[in-house]
Amino acid sequence: MNDAEKPLAPGLYLVATPIGNLEDITLRALRVLQSVDRIACEDTRQTQKLLNHFDIKKPTVSYHLHNENERAGDLLQELRAGGRIAIVSDAGTPGIADPGGRVVQAAIAAGIPVFPVPGANAAVSARPSWRSCRTP
Amino acid sequence: MNDAEKPLAPGLYLVATPIGNLEDITLRALRVLQSVDRIACEDTRQTQKLLNHFDIKKPTVSYHLHNENERAGDLLQELRAGGRIAIVSDAGTPGIADPGGRVVQAAIAAGIPVFPVPGANAAVSARPSWRSCRTP
Repeated sequence: MNDAEKPLAPGLYLVATPIGNLEDITLRALRVLQSVDRIACEDTRQTQKLLNHFDIKKPTVSYHLHNENERAGDLLQELRAGGRIAIVSDAGTPGIADPGGRVVQAAIAAGIPVFPVPGANAAVSARPSWRSCRTP
Repeated sequence: MNDAEKPLAPGLYLVATPIGNLEDITLRALRVLQSVDRIACEDTRQTQKLLNHFDIKKPTVSYHLHNENERAGDLLQELRAGGRIAIVSDAGTPGIADPGGRVVQAAIAAGIPVFPVPGANAAVSARPSWRSCRTP
Protein backbone atom coordinates (compact mmCIF):
# COMPACT_ATOMS: atom_id res chain seq x y z
CA MET A 1 0.00 0.00 0.00
CA ASN A 2 1.54 3.36 -0.93
CA ASP A 3 0.95 6.71 0.76
CA ALA A 4 -1.84 7.65 -1.67
CA GLU A 5 -3.93 4.63 -0.56
CA LYS A 6 -3.49 4.98 3.23
CA PRO A 7 -5.94 7.00 5.34
CA LEU A 8 -4.41 10.39 6.13
CA ALA A 9 -2.53 10.35 9.47
CA PRO A 10 -3.61 12.78 12.21
CA GLY A 11 -1.51 15.93 12.31
CA LEU A 12 -0.86 19.33 10.82
CA TYR A 13 -0.23 19.59 7.05
CA LEU A 14 1.57 22.63 5.58
CA VAL A 15 0.21 22.62 2.06
CA ALA A 16 1.89 24.69 -0.64
CA THR A 17 -0.65 26.10 -3.10
CA PRO A 18 -0.05 27.41 -6.63
CA ILE A 19 1.22 30.93 -7.29
CA GLY A 20 -0.68 32.09 -10.38
CA ASN A 21 -1.55 28.84 -12.17
CA LEU A 22 -4.00 26.51 -10.38
CA GLU A 23 -2.72 23.62 -12.52
CA ASP A 24 0.63 23.86 -10.68
CA ILE A 25 -0.89 22.10 -7.66
CA THR A 26 0.54 18.64 -6.91
CA LEU A 27 -1.42 15.37 -6.67
CA ARG A 28 -0.35 15.06 -3.02
CA ALA A 29 -1.60 18.56 -2.15
CA LEU A 30 -4.99 17.72 -3.70
CA ARG A 31 -5.21 14.41 -1.80
CA VAL A 32 -4.34 16.09 1.51
CA LEU A 33 -6.87 18.91 1.00
CA GLN A 34 -9.53 16.32 0.12
CA SER A 35 -8.74 14.22 3.23
CA VAL A 36 -8.24 16.68 6.12
CA ASP A 37 -11.00 17.60 8.60
CA ARG A 38 -10.46 21.35 8.30
CA ILE A 39 -8.45 23.84 6.26
CA ALA A 40 -6.95 26.87 8.00
CA CYS A 41 -6.25 29.69 5.55
CA GLU A 42 -5.10 33.27 5.46
CA ASP A 43 -8.13 34.46 3.48
CA THR A 44 -11.02 31.99 3.27
CA ARG A 45 -12.44 33.64 0.12
CA GLN A 46 -9.12 33.29 -1.71
CA THR A 47 -8.69 29.64 -0.70
CA GLN A 48 -12.33 28.91 -1.53
CA LYS A 49 -11.59 29.75 -5.19
CA LEU A 50 -8.95 26.99 -5.23
CA LEU A 51 -11.25 24.52 -3.43
CA ASN A 52 -14.17 25.29 -5.78
CA HIS A 53 -11.95 24.83 -8.85
CA PHE A 54 -11.07 21.30 -7.71
CA ASP A 55 -14.52 20.58 -6.24
CA ILE A 56 -13.15 20.12 -2.70
CA LYS A 57 -15.78 20.62 -0.02
CA LYS A 58 -14.13 21.16 3.40
CA PRO A 59 -14.77 23.52 6.32
CA THR A 60 -12.34 26.45 6.31
CA VAL A 61 -11.24 28.70 9.15
CA SER A 62 -9.34 31.96 8.77
CA TYR A 63 -6.06 32.77 10.47
CA HIS A 64 -4.06 35.94 9.93
CA LEU A 65 -1.60 38.15 11.74
CA HIS A 66 -4.35 39.63 13.96
CA ASN A 67 -5.93 36.39 15.24
CA GLU A 68 -3.05 33.95 14.87
CA ASN A 69 -2.33 33.50 18.59
CA GLU A 70 -5.88 32.70 19.67
CA ARG A 71 -6.57 30.64 16.51
CA ALA A 72 -3.47 28.56 17.23
CA GLY A 73 -5.06 27.54 20.56
CA ASP A 74 -8.28 26.36 18.89
CA LEU A 75 -6.44 24.44 16.17
CA LEU A 76 -4.09 22.84 18.71
CA GLN A 77 -7.06 21.56 20.70
CA GLU A 78 -8.47 19.93 17.58
CA LEU A 79 -5.07 18.44 16.72
CA ARG A 80 -4.67 16.99 20.25
CA ALA A 81 -8.00 15.22 19.74
CA GLY A 82 -6.57 13.48 16.65
CA GLY A 83 -7.71 15.96 14.01
CA ARG A 84 -6.12 16.41 10.62
CA ILE A 85 -5.72 20.06 9.70
CA ALA A 86 -4.23 21.68 6.61
CA ILE A 87 -2.70 25.14 6.68
CA VAL A 88 -2.52 26.96 3.38
CA SER A 89 -1.47 30.50 2.57
CA ASP A 90 -3.05 32.59 -0.18
CA ALA A 91 -0.38 31.31 -2.55
CA GLY A 92 2.94 29.60 -2.04
CA THR A 93 4.36 27.71 0.91
CA PRO A 94 2.82 28.57 4.32
CA GLY A 95 5.22 30.16 6.77
CA ILE A 96 7.63 31.62 4.19
CA ALA A 97 6.05 35.08 4.00
CA ASP A 98 2.71 34.43 5.67
CA PRO A 99 1.20 33.94 9.10
CA GLY A 100 1.01 30.32 10.27
CA GLY A 101 4.30 29.95 12.10
CA ARG A 102 2.57 30.21 15.50
CA VAL A 103 0.33 27.20 14.80
CA VAL A 104 3.31 25.16 13.57
CA GLN A 105 5.39 26.07 16.63
CA ALA A 106 2.55 25.17 19.01
CA ALA A 107 1.97 21.84 17.25
CA ILE A 108 5.66 20.88 17.39
CA ALA A 109 5.92 21.88 21.05
CA ALA A 110 2.87 19.68 21.78
CA GLY A 111 4.36 16.69 19.96
CA ILE A 112 1.83 16.82 17.10
CA PRO A 113 3.23 15.53 13.77
CA VAL A 114 3.79 18.30 11.19
CA PHE A 115 3.92 17.25 7.53
CA PRO A 116 5.22 19.68 4.87
CA VAL A 117 3.56 19.13 1.48
CA PRO A 118 5.88 20.78 -1.07
CA GLY A 119 4.68 22.77 -4.04
CA ALA A 120 5.82 24.32 -7.28
CA ASN A 121 8.37 27.06 -6.84
CA ALA A 122 8.65 29.75 -9.49
CA ALA A 123 12.09 30.97 -8.42
CA VAL A 124 13.69 27.55 -8.89
CA SER A 125 11.87 27.09 -12.16
CA ALA A 126 13.09 30.43 -13.47
CA ARG A 127 16.76 29.80 -12.75
CA PRO A 128 17.65 27.65 -15.79
CA SER A 129 15.89 30.18 -18.02
CA TRP A 130 17.88 33.09 -16.59
CA ARG A 131 21.10 31.32 -17.36
CA SER A 132 19.98 30.59 -20.88
CA CYS A 133 18.74 34.12 -21.46
CA ARG A 134 22.30 35.39 -21.16
CA THR A 135 23.03 33.79 -24.53
CA PRO A 136 22.49 35.93 -27.66
CA MET B 1 -10.92 28.17 -22.62
CA ASN B 2 -8.15 27.83 -20.02
CA ASP B 3 -4.62 26.50 -20.59
CA ALA B 4 -5.57 22.96 -19.62
CA GLU B 5 -8.11 22.77 -22.48
CA LYS B 6 -5.92 24.23 -25.25
CA PRO B 7 -3.76 22.03 -27.49
CA LEU B 8 -0.16 22.23 -26.30
CA ALA B 9 1.80 24.95 -28.18
CA PRO B 10 4.93 23.96 -30.12
CA GLY B 11 8.15 24.49 -28.17
CA LEU B 12 10.50 23.18 -25.52
CA TYR B 13 9.08 22.37 -22.06
CA LEU B 14 11.38 22.18 -19.02
CA VAL B 15 9.41 19.86 -16.78
CA ALA B 16 10.29 19.56 -13.10
CA THR B 17 9.77 16.01 -11.82
CA PRO B 18 9.35 14.82 -8.22
CA ILE B 19 12.33 14.25 -5.94
CA GLY B 20 11.43 11.16 -3.92
CA ASN B 21 7.62 11.12 -3.93
CA LEU B 22 5.93 10.59 -7.32
CA GLU B 23 2.75 12.14 -5.91
CA ASP B 24 4.57 15.50 -5.75
CA ILE B 25 4.14 15.91 -9.52
CA THR B 26 1.86 18.77 -10.59
CA LEU B 27 -1.24 18.51 -12.78
CA ARG B 28 0.44 20.75 -15.35
CA ALA B 29 3.57 18.56 -15.52
CA LEU B 30 1.35 15.51 -16.14
CA ARG B 31 -0.61 17.29 -18.87
CA VAL B 32 2.56 18.45 -20.63
CA LEU B 33 4.17 14.99 -20.49
CA GLN B 34 0.96 13.46 -21.88
CA SER B 35 0.80 16.02 -24.73
CA VAL B 36 4.37 16.41 -26.07
CA ASP B 37 5.71 14.50 -29.07
CA ARG B 38 8.89 13.34 -27.36
CA ILE B 39 10.51 13.37 -23.92
CA ALA B 40 14.26 14.00 -23.65
CA CYS B 41 15.66 12.65 -20.39
CA GLU B 42 18.93 12.14 -18.58
CA ASP B 43 18.34 8.43 -18.03
CA THR B 44 15.49 6.90 -20.02
CA ARG B 45 15.12 3.97 -17.57
CA GLN B 46 14.67 6.33 -14.63
CA THR B 47 12.13 8.52 -16.44
CA GLN B 48 10.31 5.44 -17.72
CA LYS B 49 9.46 4.51 -14.10
CA LEU B 50 7.70 7.86 -13.73
CA LEU B 51 5.91 7.50 -17.09
CA ASN B 52 4.81 3.93 -16.31
CA HIS B 53 3.47 4.99 -12.91
CA PHE B 54 1.18 7.55 -14.57
CA ASP B 55 0.49 5.38 -17.64
CA ILE B 56 2.06 7.91 -20.03
CA LYS B 57 3.18 6.36 -23.32
CA LYS B 58 5.61 8.67 -25.16
CA PRO B 59 8.85 8.14 -27.06
CA THR B 60 11.89 9.02 -24.93
CA VAL B 61 15.39 10.00 -26.02
CA SER B 62 18.43 10.17 -23.74
CA TYR B 63 20.64 13.19 -23.30
CA HIS B 64 23.53 13.44 -20.89
CA LEU B 65 26.85 15.24 -20.49
CA HIS B 66 28.53 13.05 -23.13
CA ASN B 67 26.00 13.43 -25.98
CA GLU B 68 24.39 16.74 -25.10
CA ASN B 69 25.91 18.77 -27.96
CA GLU B 70 24.94 16.43 -30.77
CA ARG B 71 21.56 15.64 -29.19
CA ALA B 72 20.81 19.36 -28.99
CA GLY B 73 21.13 19.51 -32.80
CA ASP B 74 18.63 16.69 -33.34
CA LEU B 75 16.13 18.14 -30.88
CA LEU B 76 16.48 21.62 -32.36
CA GLN B 77 15.66 20.27 -35.81
CA GLU B 78 12.48 18.69 -34.45
CA LEU B 79 11.57 21.92 -32.64
CA ARG B 80 12.08 24.01 -35.80
CA ALA B 81 9.59 21.71 -37.54
CA GLY B 82 6.96 22.62 -34.92
CA GLY B 83 7.60 19.77 -32.49
CA ARG B 84 6.72 19.82 -28.81
CA ILE B 85 9.51 18.37 -26.68
CA ALA B 86 9.76 17.97 -22.91
CA ILE B 87 13.09 17.89 -21.13
CA VAL B 88 13.13 16.21 -17.73
CA SER B 89 16.00 15.41 -15.43
CA ASP B 90 16.14 12.30 -13.23
CA ALA B 91 14.52 14.32 -10.45
CA GLY B 92 14.05 18.00 -9.86
CA THR B 93 14.17 20.95 -12.23
CA PRO B 94 16.14 20.42 -15.47
CA GLY B 95 19.18 22.64 -15.83
CA ILE B 96 19.76 23.26 -12.11
CA ALA B 97 22.27 20.44 -11.56
CA ASP B 98 21.74 18.42 -14.73
CA PRO B 99 22.62 18.45 -18.39
CA GLY B 100 20.03 20.14 -20.62
CA GLY B 101 21.32 23.71 -20.66
CA ARG B 102 22.75 23.27 -24.18
CA VAL B 103 19.34 22.34 -25.63
CA VAL B 104 17.69 25.28 -23.89
CA GLN B 105 20.35 27.72 -25.11
CA ALA B 106 20.07 26.45 -28.69
CA ALA B 107 16.29 26.71 -28.62
CA ILE B 108 16.34 30.29 -27.30
CA ALA B 109 18.98 31.32 -29.86
CA ALA B 110 16.76 29.84 -32.60
CA GLY B 111 13.68 31.72 -31.40
CA ILE B 112 11.90 28.57 -30.21
CA PRO B 113 9.54 29.19 -27.26
CA VAL B 114 10.82 27.69 -23.98
CA PHE B 115 8.24 27.01 -21.27
CA PRO B 116 9.34 26.26 -17.68
CA VAL B 117 6.91 23.94 -15.87
CA PRO B 118 7.64 24.40 -12.15
CA GLY B 119 7.66 21.59 -9.63
CA ALA B 120 7.70 20.86 -5.93
CA ASN B 121 10.82 22.06 -4.20
CA ALA B 122 11.92 20.35 -1.01
CA ALA B 123 14.24 23.14 0.13
CA VAL B 124 11.46 25.75 0.13
CA SER B 125 9.11 23.31 1.82
CA ALA B 126 11.62 22.58 4.56
CA ARG B 127 12.26 26.20 5.48
CA PRO B 128 9.18 26.86 7.65
CA SER B 129 9.86 23.60 9.50
CA TRP B 130 13.46 24.57 10.25
CA ARG B 131 12.30 27.81 11.79
CA SER B 132 9.76 26.00 13.90
CA CYS B 133 12.19 23.29 14.96
CA ARG B 134 14.26 25.91 16.77
CA THR B 135 11.47 26.17 19.36
CA PRO B 136 11.69 23.85 22.43
